[in-house]
Amino acid sequence: MSKKVLTVGEILVEIVATTKGDGFLEPQPLVGPFPSGAPAIFIDQIGRLGTPAAIISRVGDDDFGRLNLDRLIADGVDVSGIEVARGEATGSAFVRYRPDGSRAFVYNIAHSATGNLTLTPDAEALMESCDHVHVMGTALSAPGLSQVAREAVARITARGGTLSFDPNLRPEILDTPGLREALDEVLAQTNLFLPSGEEIYLFTEADDEAAAVKELLDRGVGDIVIKRGNQGASHFNRAGRTDVAPLSTDEVDPTGAGDCFGGAFVSFWLAGASPETALRFANAAGANAVTKVGPMEGAATRDELDALLGQSEG
Amino acid sequence: MSKKVLTVGEILVEIVATTKGDGFLEPQPLVGPFPSGAPAIFIDQIGRLGTPAAIISRVGDDDFGRLNLDRLIADGVDVSGIEVARGEATGSAFVRYRPDGSRAFVYNIAHSATGNLTLTPDAEALMESCDHVHVMGTALSAPGLSQVAREAVARITARGGTLSFDPNLRPEILDTPGLREALDEVLAQTNLFLPSGEEIYLFTEADDEAAAVKELLDRGVGDIVIKRGNQGASHFNRAGRTDVAPLSTDEVDPTGAGDCFGGAFVSFWLAGASPETALRFANAAGANAVTKVGPMEGAATRDELDALLGQSEG
Repeated sequence: MSKKVLTVGEILVEIVATTKGDGFLEPQPLVGPFPSGAPAIFIDQIGRLGTPAAIISRVGDDDFGRLNLDRLIADGVDVSGIEVARGEATGSAFVRYRPDGSRAFVYNIAHSATGNLTLTPDAEALMESCDHVHVMGTALSAPGLSQVAREAVARITARGGTLSFDPNLRPEILDTPGLREALDEVLAQTNLFLPSGEEIYLFTEADDEAAAVKELLDRGVGDIVIKRGNQGASHFNRAGRTDVAPLSTDEVDPTGAGDCFGGAFVSFWLAGASPETALRFANAAGANAVTKVGPMEGAATRDELDALLGQSEG
Repeated sequence: MSKKVLTVGEILVEIVATTKGDGFLEPQPLVGPFPSGAPAIFIDQIGRLGTPAAIISRVGDDDFGRLNLDRLIADGVDVSGIEVARGEATGSAFVRYRPDGSRAFVYNIAHSATGNLTLTPDAEALMESCDHVHVMGTALSAPGLSQVAREAVARITARGGTLSFDPNLRPEILDTPGLREALDEVLAQTNLFLPSGEEIYLFTEADDEAAAVKELLDRGVGDIVIKRGNQGASHFNRAGRTDVAPLSTDEVDPTGAGDCFGGAFVSFWLAGASPETALRFANAAGANAVTKVGPMEGAATRDELDALLGQSEG
């Protein structure tokens, strides 16, 4: 039977500015709400690939919460661990791309429904039914989310389950009190580590990539995947290194691509695929994601990934 | 010297759907953020007319708070009573018009920065410098806002200042615990009452308009203005009744029109204008407001009102 993947973390809507520029100091054309939240995008990609998947989170009893629930349910994700909080608002992120490709955000997360997550009986029951847990660094930056995420890690690993970890940290949250300790605690139990680019150095003394990878493998991380955005990706374990070249795409909106990459990699890795196979499909999932406006809109089905890979490999 | 007007209440951004329909269950074109919040729109209209004006409120330290501060400052409003709350999010309202003209909302107010208002030394100082206080019913529906609003009423009326009151109540908030008592307390001290349409019956036993008006005048309300949207408006006091016919306009977005009407009426009323004059200018302010997308965008200057009245009466 397929292993079931659990994640804990924020569910948001995302509103995207349709012009480039710096921030939201004047009225401008927008498009949204899109279902969002890095853990939600990750788990939606898992669900679309047909791998059993669940998320523990919290939304308001408003259209923005409903929109996310509807999407996750449609893609096969178990939403029994999502609490609908009466009278609270679903979290939101407004994003605008600057001309240089960087992003300006206005967030409502910490004081939204998702920021007030606590451990519920439904969430506890869900932890008992899952075989793998995936942690995003963003989920460790708010006290309630962090506590529940670490509880999920403790319970699932105690039962022999596995743990994957994507730091996914925006620089502005690295100073959050307690975050560093939580990250270290999670890394110490990580089987599969999925940093983006420079994040490989977050937990190492080494400052070149090969040495950083060796340091992490020596500390017991079994598999490491470095996501390099439009430069492809690399997998490392004791058996060696595997690289995959980027697929050429018409990039429309890079938000969510790393989460879709991660979801696809975890799906194939858990199913026992070789690093090369898992990396190829993950790479295709990331490439597919950037072609759609909206962070979760580009989560791909197996058929879509097969088509994309068949086409690029002729 | 001109009397200075104070209001207490919510500051928000508003995001407007550009297509008609019911709610926000799928991504759609939007425009925003617009500065908003009924008390903020009211006080901005007062400021634009050159009447001394101030607001006590609370915003997040984000672009949405900055947008509102910038607008209010530009229109001459004293913002010393607006607290900028670090790490909190500015309130928001998403609005979509249904084909029948009614509106669907998604709010983040109660748990936003503005919902956590408390009495600050700056707010207390401001209360000492103002001669008139205006209360919106919406500000009485959240505990923090309500406490500060009632404190402003107590202090300003104790010093001989005057009070205007616009119930401005959406049906869904009428059941809020304590709201009814707060409304009754404010009405008992009201000099100028500004209900919209059916709101005239909120505090009366009478169920026809003339009897309801008499009941309120008998209870000590000096002036009553019934706002009838695109049907004009009527003023009542002991001396009699004055009506004003609607101005014909190309309605684009009615949100905020009642607040602009109220702001203009209070400005002229405080300056000692006759009911007829105050009503004509208020009517023009409401008519101007509906011609612009965005709740605060249609707040008018004196020149704009003169032009509108000259044209319609020319």
